[in-house]
Amino acid sequence: MLGIDPGLSRCGYGVIERRGRRPIAIAAGVIVTDKERPIAERLAHLQREVRSLIAEHKPTVVAIERVLFQTNVRTAMSVGQASGVVLAEAANAGCEVAEYSPNEVKETVTGWGAAPKEQVERMVRSLLGIDHPLKPVDAADALALALCHLARVRGGGGLRMTLGTGAKQ
Amino acid sequence: MLGIDPGLSRCGYGVIERRGRRPIAIAAGVIVTDKERPIAERLAHLQREVRSLIAEHKPTVVAIERVLFQTNVRTAMSVGQASGVVLAEAANAGCEVAEYSPNEVKETVTGWGAAPKEQVERMVRSLLGIDHPLKPVDAADALALALCHLARVRGGGGLRMTLGTGAKQ
Repeated sequence: MLGIDPGLSRCGYGVIERRGRRPIAIAAGVIVTDKERPIAERLAHLQREVRSLIAEHKPTVVAIERVLFQTNVRTAMSVGQASGVVLAEAANAGCEVAEYSPNEVKETVTGWGAAPKEQVERMVRSLLGIDHPLKPVDAADALALALCHLARVRGGGGLRMTLGTGAKQ
Repeated sequence: MLGIDPGLSRCGYGVIERRGRRPIAIAAGVIVTDKERPIAERLAHLQREVRSLIAEHKPTVVAIERVLFQTNVRTAMSVGQASGVVLAEAANAGCEVAEYSPNEVKETVTGWGAAPKEQVERMVRSLLGIDHPLKPVDAADALALALCHLARVRGGGGLRMTLGTGAKQ
């Protein structure tokens, strides 16, 4: 599955796969668009990159951060535009699309809805058995989204257990 | 050129063409998405429709309403997402993309930035020589966007004159 932390300047992505009970990180990174270019070109660039990620990794599910109102209206709008591009692209590629709020992701991955970014990043590494820092942070957030979806479809009360058990094998 | 008044529930479109000095309406309408479906599916539907409009009419320019902050945050976000889809699609199809604020469109088409929708609709009909009411209003707004762009690329102080002269031939 593919996790996407949408943004116009920086859009994090992370691909994970289930190997038995264990989630494995396949790819993670960030799509950066040039702030000097017009918005339409930047969104077009994002669209091409997302399309190519989907073509390459063939995810069945795309988990994306639900865009919420932010105090910075300009940022909120560009995040909304970027998320629109990703959602349309994913659904037209035949992927199931799941949206999670930042709090749902934090709650699922760290057990605490208000966890700081560093804690999310550490848990993501721990769950995926990655022993080096995940940079940029957008990539860690995107992997967290994918892990969140994985945990939730595995369902039930033992979300953390499921993930935790997987990662420690 | 193709004018787009972006929205998720209703996305207006209008295609105009220059015949000599006269702007002609080629097509106008509204893309409606099903409010009962998930956002991603609705955006995907919008993406397919916009793609097919561009494929059919081969516009060189797509003029789209610049999304501004609205009091209704939920609406603003979905308009942002819809506009993102349209902008990416247009730029990736090789179209030039021009954004205009509602006030710029009103100012250019009616000479008054605060003109009511009815006045915009009447001017659009007058400029394009259409003798029946333009419904839905989203289609009129989209045609107004296309006319706004046409007037502005013709340039100079005589924007209204240029459009007006064209329509009255």
